[in-house]
Amino acid sequence: MRAFCKASAPGKAILFGEHFVVYGEPAIAVALNIRVKVTAYKSQSKFIEGFRTALVNKAIDAALKTVNSEDKNVHVKIESDLPVSVGLGSSAATASAIIAAVTGLFGVKLSKDELFNMALECEKTVHVNPSGIDPAVTVNGGAVLYQRGVGIKPVKLGEDFTLIIGNTGEGRSTGAMVEKVRIFAERRRDVMDGLRKTYSSTVLRALEALEKGDFEELGLLMNVNHGLLEALGVSNFKLNKLVYASREAGALGAKLTGGGGGGCMIALASKERLKSIAEVIMRAGGEPIIAPISKVGVVYEG
Amino acid sequence: MRAFCKASAPGKAILFGEHFVVYGEPAIAVALNIRVKVTAYKSQSKFIEGFRTALVNKAIDAALKTVNSEDKNVHVKIESDLPVSVGLGSSAATASAIIAAVTGLFGVKLSKDELFNMALECEKTVHVNPSGIDPAVTVNGGAVLYQRGVGIKPVKLGEDFTLIIGNTGEGRSTGAMVEKVRIFAERRRDVMDGLRKTYSSTVLRALEALEKGDFEELGLLMNVNHGLLEALGVSNFKLNKLVYASREAGALGAKLTGGGGGGCMIALASKERLKSIAEVIMRAGGEPIIAPISKVGVVYEG
Repeated sequence: MRAFCKASAPGKAILFGEHFVVYGEPAIAVALNIRVKVTAYKSQSKFIEGFRTALVNKAIDAALKTVNSEDKNVHVKIESDLPVSVGLGSSAATASAIIAAVTGLFGVKLSKDELFNMALECEKTVHVNPSGIDPAVTVNGGAVLYQRGVGIKPVKLGEDFTLIIGNTGEGRSTGAMVEKVRIFAERRRDVMDGLRKTYSSTVLRALEALEKGDFEELGLLMNVNHGLLEALGVSNFKLNKLVYASREAGALGAKLTGGGGGGCMIALASKERLKSIAEVIMRAGGEPIIAPISKVGVVYEG
Repeated sequence: MRAFCKASAPGKAILFGEHFVVYGEPAIAVALNIRVKVTAYKSQSKFIEGFRTALVNKAIDAALKTVNSEDKNVHVKIESDLPVSVGLGSSAATASAIIAAVTGLFGVKLSKDELFNMALECEKTVHVNPSGIDPAVTVNGGAVLYQRGVGIKPVKLGEDFTLIIGNTGEGRSTGAMVEKVRIFAERRRDVMDGLRKTYSSTVLRALEALEKGDFEELGLLMNVNHGLLEALGVSNFKLNKLVYASREAGALGAKLTGGGGGGCMIALASKERLKSIAEVIMRAGGEPIIAPISKVGVVYEG
């Protein structure tokens, strides 16, 4: 058994498909190189830093079970650059990195499928009925396509790119937003059908743009997706302020990401514009993070 | 012949359908009780106040021709509370009020159809290929439904209501926006079809809401329409700022009105909220006008 084992996992952003995914439409999510880093180690000390959440406990327990250990002296140190509870996938990233680090401590290297299944179980302590897209992205890296009842598959990226995240700093409740959309759709079936049809065309074109590395088109399609989410009523003043500030500063596209009603937006821009867009997001009252796509998922760091 | 004749005509706002109307979808416009007032009078004085635009000249000439007069001493005084060139129909209102006042000076009262046809001709000096919706609304008052190739018909209003106009003060070019949408639609036919289908469901529901006086539903449908216009790429930072400021101040709905890319937005609100929404629009940098629907179109004022 090793003295310690380090592993890290990337965050994620939904590029296309929030809310529409609930109605059976495909969604695209990308891994972001904003990572959760976990060091697993053994210690008999009673003075362990940090406290354990249900998610952390479940991840450690699942990992120990996998390696057939009941060692109570295994601990983890978690360092994260990912803001929590804003739709950037910190739960799945944290769980995956813990599972990889703890099993690694016992010299076991899990397959991606094993990691995915275990991380998904852990996510259930935090999210009701999670789709699985978060653990899929964090474990595999890159971009993935997810559709309810169909599953998850990787998306080919013609070229790498970088997103600018804008955190509104406003609390959000994905559940409340999902319920708002449910009522909207129930009362106006025809309008919802039209929005879904439009979204469906948009996401298929986005897949093509991602494969080609056509970022102008990708940005425009992100704007279309944002408009559809507006129509559903899940955007708000501050999200829109950051979205439009980014566009006016030259972003190729900008949209809310995640459930809406607060949380984060994302902007796509050429390398030359990244910093200036981060600045306008800050001036508009948001917290910007420049986040390159992470081609890799969970990795062992030593 | 009378010494003078006064007539007034209301402005208009597009409630639903900007841009989509170009693709054959129906639009709803309403007459606003922000009026252009015209006094026609005879004077031999060389010192006439104001200057004549091509529109004013054409309206006076058309009116004189109708009454078989070649009197060069007929003049008009125009007083208007309508901002010009922001999509509120000032051209059609000005032309209609002039035609009514000048013909009235000669004791002639034109029918609504005559007024409409003459005002439409005058509008051609200002707008290329006008749809006819502006003169229809200003002449008839109330709300009208317009569809290309189908025509114009009145919309039943279950109850009166008041809009708050927010003028961004930013210049706009409807032509440039129409061209932007044309390119968007040409390159992404399927996305445009989806947006049109969604719009079509939305406007049919809006007609129902107007008939019932269901303003909560009407406001929500205005928000949907705004989202679709966002998806088309015709909104901008300031329009959205006024739209979201209004919604967060309790408007039942808010959307851009007219071509977008500047110009005006409209908000729908209960009577109790009108003033506070006008205030937030002002604080957000817009110029608010509280505008009740005008049930009457062109009227003689004495």
